[in-house]
Amino acid sequence: MNIPETELPRVVIIGGGFAGISLAQKLLKLPVQTVLLDRHNYHTFQPLLYQVSTSGLEPDSIAYPLRKITRLHTGGYFRMGEVTGIDAELNMVHSDIGDLKYDYLVIATGSKTNFFGNKSIEEHAMWMKTVPQALNIRSLILENLEQAVITEDPEKRKSLLNFVLAGAGPTGVELSGAIAELRNNVVPEDYPDIASDEMQIHLLEGLDRVLPPMSEKASKSAHKFLEELGVKIHLNTMVESYDGHLVKTNTNLELRSETFIWSAGVTGAPVAGLNASAMIEKANRYHVNTFNQVNGYENIFAIGDIAIMQSGDYPRGHPMVAQPAIQQGSHLAKNFSRLLKGENLKPFEYFDKGSMATVGRNRAVVDIGKFKFGGFFAWYIWMFIHLWFLIGFRNRFVTFFNWVYNYINYDKAARLIIRPFKGFKKAMETNQKKV
Amino acid sequence: MNIPETELPRVVIIGGGFAGISLAQKLLKLPVQTVLLDRHNYHTFQPLLYQVSTSGLEPDSIAYPLRKITRLHTGGYFRMGEVTGIDAELNMVHSDIGDLKYDYLVIATGSKTNFFGNKSIEEHAMWMKTVPQALNIRSLILENLEQAVITEDPEKRKSLLNFVLAGAGPTGVELSGAIAELRNNVVPEDYPDIASDEMQIHLLEGLDRVLPPMSEKASKSAHKFLEELGVKIHLNTMVESYDGHLVKTNTNLELRSETFIWSAGVTGAPVAGLNASAMIEKANRYHVNTFNQVNGYENIFAIGDIAIMQSGDYPRGHPMVAQPAIQQGSHLAKNFSRLLKGENLKPFEYFDKGSMATVGRNRAVVDIGKFKFGGFFAWYIWMFIHLWFLIGFRNRFVTFFNWVYNYINYDKAARLIIRPFKGFKKAMETNQKKV
Repeated sequence: MNIPETELPRVVIIGGGFAGISLAQKLLKLPVQTVLLDRHNYHTFQPLLYQVSTSGLEPDSIAYPLRKITRLHTGGYFRMGEVTGIDAELNMVHSDIGDLKYDYLVIATGSKTNFFGNKSIEEHAMWMKTVPQALNIRSLILENLEQAVITEDPEKRKSLLNFVLAGAGPTGVELSGAIAELRNNVVPEDYPDIASDEMQIHLLEGLDRVLPPMSEKASKSAHKFLEELGVKIHLNTMVESYDGHLVKTNTNLELRSETFIWSAGVTGAPVAGLNASAMIEKANRYHVNTFNQVNGYENIFAIGDIAIMQSGDYPRGHPMVAQPAIQQGSHLAKNFSRLLKGENLKPFEYFDKGSMATVGRNRAVVDIGKFKFGGFFAWYIWMFIHLWFLIGFRNRFVTFFNWVYNYINYDKAARLIIRPFKGFKKAMETNQKKV
Repeated sequence: MNIPETELPRVVIIGGGFAGISLAQKLLKLPVQTVLLDRHNYHTFQPLLYQVSTSGLEPDSIAYPLRKITRLHTGGYFRMGEVTGIDAELNMVHSDIGDLKYDYLVIATGSKTNFFGNKSIEEHAMWMKTVPQALNIRSLILENLEQAVITEDPEKRKSLLNFVLAGAGPTGVELSGAIAELRNNVVPEDYPDIASDEMQIHLLEGLDRVLPPMSEKASKSAHKFLEELGVKIHLNTMVESYDGHLVKTNTNLELRSETFIWSAGVTGAPVAGLNASAMIEKANRYHVNTFNQVNGYENIFAIGDIAIMQSGDYPRGHPMVAQPAIQQGSHLAKNFSRLLKGENLKPFEYFDKGSMATVGRNRAVVDIGKFKFGGFFAWYIWMFIHLWFLIGFRNRFVTFFNWVYNYINYDKAARLIIRPFKGFKKAMETNQKKV
């Protein structure tokens, strides 16, 4: 990979998500050579991906070049490549751009969509973990609207105008809310030949409430907000198959749809090569101690979604969201500092800042400790927090401007089919999971 | 295409470029049914495409949803589709989304890249007429930089860091200037392992000066500006072939390059079906009278790049740039108004507002009538005019903000490889010309 060997210890970080960049940003101040590896050359702010999918934001506003992070330090390197394996005996990672020795390895590979082994869903559904996938959803939604207006077969038209989402976690709730706003505010203007009740949004959830990880109160408010926006919610409903046209469930419900979005679960995205004891098989995640050291290894760490740190408060590990990842990255940087000075490592403690989800304009739900509230104030907090955590002044400013613009104009301005999804679908089938 | 027949005369416009939307915007006030057809669902502001190619602007900032134009009038329709032919006997257009009858047809299909029959260039070069093509160039530039830093073969590394452009018209000049700025301002920060003189930009021009359509003075200033930025200019040099790795010219010059951009000419992009007499064969453009009526047809018009209107001042037609297109579209709308009232049509007269090109920060050249100047003031005018003509407040605002941000920070912030070009290249080979 053309990285010079120096007398500094080399820390290799796999993955430029929340955990990886939180660590990298802090590491740059330490006497180490940091190498950040990612298959993309940018960090993705995943909590706002759903706004890219629904024409609210442009992709560049929520992505940040990783080289802007590594360039802050002369001992910082970035390499774009996909890690294919780890050889812990040799202290080496293998990748599609070559091998690299490490002194310390930090695995921050995050999570990937979990299809629970359902092949028909994996083959035909859309999902949203990366910017290109979010753009594919945006294109597909807009292409289906374009096709609906020229389709004379009423069944086909209905199928094109039916949008079905499986999984009412934050992603499913936020995405279905945003599609509903597109339907309520943009479609009547842009597509006068589509009647407002023709376009339908169905949100399916296997459990008995939306937003299962949040409080009962949040679930209740979100449910009400979604219904106000016109989203049809189906609880206790599990999808059994999707053939590209028909969604079948374990209840009697069958829905014709050309747009089926799978947001029903994630699983760890580990790298090959470590011993079986390093993994919690069921979760596909690395078993780490309170220092984020992977079970059985001294110099290999895992942080963020890919790590399970079992503790009294979190017997099944921390939630797979941004905050634990950011905090673990930042904590590990401090532990590296201690390690280099020969001091003892300190255990990680998670500070739960709460959780939140937005459903649409003026509608969000927030759980912060004992405080659980919804509505305009929650929505305001949600916006503030998301702007705060976005990386880079430019991204914050452009995102803020777009929100104000969209709010005032009831608009979603980025509704452009830059790369038609259908045209590329065939060509992409082999690549989609990689990009 | 599912468009209702009404008692209003139907005007079908093929193409949502400058000419097409200039007409559509004005037609919406007349008692006609307007149908705008385009293969994209957005208008592209082509003069700023080169900034998308070089990470200065995001694609959504220079594109504008066409439905935002047609939705302003109940008699306005937009359909996304590719017109495949015209049947003038039946007053009908054929397209990949069906057939459509017209009362009046306006062809505004613009121009396409001209390879002058050179197959090796058409097959291996990059070119830039659409947003996806501009994004492909952006990805390729960034991918080649990423690959250069991990390449150990010095010849290959040189080839990856050599950027070659053929054709020093406005596109070639602006693009090579912007790549040079990327090299001067961003690469030293982002890629400390690339020495500044390793990355080279070569601009090849067959004639004896850059910017041949502009004044001698503009050519001279632009030449000086480009050299100041470090662009190597080769005049009187024609490219003979490019095999994907080696650019061969009619002089002794041979350049190894993985990035060869063809900006050496355009030709009309006509639609099949009209009589031979309608066309000026050599130019691939429709022969129109001073009312923009296509030679031999009463109810078929052509406007913008695709039309040649020969007159005393412009024996070979107007220049193929935005201004004649905008003015012809707007003029034709007025003539439609006269036509509907039974009045006589008025001949088109072109008002030459001048021409300009930008080379980089603080560097532009402007020819307005007798006034020919270059430098900071020209650059300022250039920015103002381009913001003015951008469609939509949001686009203007975001573009302005990005310019200010990039200017202050010597940055090009949108340097994200959202869709890797190389990975998709194979898959795209069959699609590229269409998207």
